[in-house]
Amino acid sequence: MSSAVPSSLVVLNRPSAAAPAHDPAAAPWRLVDPAEPVLSALDLGATRGDGVFETISVGEGRPQSLDHHLRRFARSAELLDLPAPDEEAWRAAIAGAIEALPPVRAAWVKTVLTRGVEGDDRPTGWAYASHAGDFTRQREVGIRVVLLDRGYRHDVERTSPWLLAGAKTLSYAVNRSVLREAQRRGADDVVFVSSDGFLLEGPTSSVLYRIDGVLVTPGTGLGILDGTTQVSLFVLARELGIPTEYRLARPEELERADAMWLVSSVRHAAPVRELDGRPLPVDHELTARMNAYLETRET
Amino acid sequence: MSSAVPSSLVVLNRPSAAAPAHDPAAAPWRLVDPAEPVLSALDLGATRGDGVFETISVGEGRPQSLDHHLRRFARSAELLDLPAPDEEAWRAAIAGAIEALPPVRAAWVKTVLTRGVEGDDRPTGWAYASHAGDFTRQREVGIRVVLLDRGYRHDVERTSPWLLAGAKTLSYAVNRSVLREAQRRGADDVVFVSSDGFLLEGPTSSVLYRIDGVLVTPGTGLGILDGTTQVSLFVLARELGIPTEYRLARPEELERADAMWLVSSVRHAAPVRELDGRPLPVDHELTARMNAYLETRET
Repeated sequence: MSSAVPSSLVVLNRPSAAAPAHDPAAAPWRLVDPAEPVLSALDLGATRGDGVFETISVGEGRPQSLDHHLRRFARSAELLDLPAPDEEAWRAAIAGAIEALPPVRAAWVKTVLTRGVEGDDRPTGWAYASHAGDFTRQREVGIRVVLLDRGYRHDVERTSPWLLAGAKTLSYAVNRSVLREAQRRGADDVVFVSSDGFLLEGPTSSVLYRIDGVLVTPGTGLGILDGTTQVSLFVLARELGIPTEYRLARPEELERADAMWLVSSVRHAAPVRELDGRPLPVDHELTARMNAYLETRET
Repeated sequence: MSSAVPSSLVVLNRPSAAAPAHDPAAAPWRLVDPAEPVLSALDLGATRGDGVFETISVGEGRPQSLDHHLRRFARSAELLDLPAPDEEAWRAAIAGAIEALPPVRAAWVKTVLTRGVEGDDRPTGWAYASHAGDFTRQREVGIRVVLLDRGYRHDVERTSPWLLAGAKTLSYAVNRSVLREAQRRGADDVVFVSSDGFLLEGPTSSVLYRIDGVLVTPGTGLGILDGTTQVSLFVLARELGIPTEYRLARPEELERADAMWLVSSVRHAAPVRELDGRPLPVDHELTARMNAYLETRET
């Protein structure tokens, strides 16, 4: 039950700079009981998945990669023709939600901006913070992953921008559905492959792998997210003298990989120990360094 | 503003047969003020578009094609591995929402079933009813339509069921985004084309066209919805002696069509007067017969 984990919820009065506030005289945000209903059944976030979100890890009370997350949040909003998030209001709301949590080593905060109640012309915004779960097992033992067709070509972001590939939207039913398909196949997580056969991303993570000593991730512009954790790990790799590369690649390339990870904001680096039923080597030492780095990074 | 139109909102106590009710002793549903917040910010319907819906037209107080809608609602839930909707509870809730509306010739009711609050293991369900808008202009003058890539191949429902093509989910951000793209192109609505070049459906409608005297619609199994209004109009066509056909076809075929419609539950039959900027003939007489039939059908 979600209620067993300490959490906090903040509702924004003015989630976007351009749109009118519900009450211009009110504080920028208000703290509410996470168990209290706060959304209208007419909110387009709930009826059409019409909104965007970010999930930001919080280490020792500090939101991590916050600038990157806020940039991506604004970019997602732009792709959906939503009014631009009011960055100052979101920074204050995120800080408020974190402050309302009992102090803890690892937490996360999710920011959500929806198009609001249909016809109301005012977006809805909230920030929900929670203590993080325990991902020790996934980080140390590793996860089993299956490759699944994403349905879209790798160039869909360029040819068909109305499909919103590359935006982090609330329309994530497929990102949940593929996890159930993974479970049916005896796996824990998924890597999407484009309909024309290129590696993309996980439903809630970026893909990293090491081949010939180079740390590789699929490039941007493939209708996938610009991974905040992946970028942090490329910084670490440079510190460690490991070459990095953005590369358009096919799944067959993974047969030569000697390590692979799914990396994301809250679970951090989860080594892939099995891909489509085939065992993959796990580099426990590098994985531990990655996770120590991600847990303690300052920004 | 939505508040200017008479509406009603009913929240279900037991939206699915298998899942526990929030309060087993409570009535099957309760009427709430549509302006009142009823949803948790943690509801997976709002945070992941993880749920299904139907929009049902109401003529003279009677929900139309209700059996078909409820079948499709259950089918969508099944595709998302949601617990089956409690049909009896939904029929009662729909009736309750309609009864709470001031009587009117044309209304609609939307049913929504979400996976509920994360970790709670209880789906959320509501029925929202509203007086219908005025679609006279679209029905009589017609609409301008553009063809847009849907990104998926026509056979994706079969090859990649985890993409949920053919389920009516709350993850409808793309279905809204394409309407904005249509507007940018000076059009009113959209017909999706599969990535391998076959006609599919509109974002909230089925496609009908007439060619060589035959009323044609794309078949099922193409990752598109089984259209309730389209089925009703095929019944009418048979009554009028017009042959009908389900046919996999490419957009080029529309160059030979002498009439085309987007048909849906609330707007009914909207003739297409322009396709990608090219004028299309409108059969005003048949369109009027279609709309009279749809407005007054008993079931």
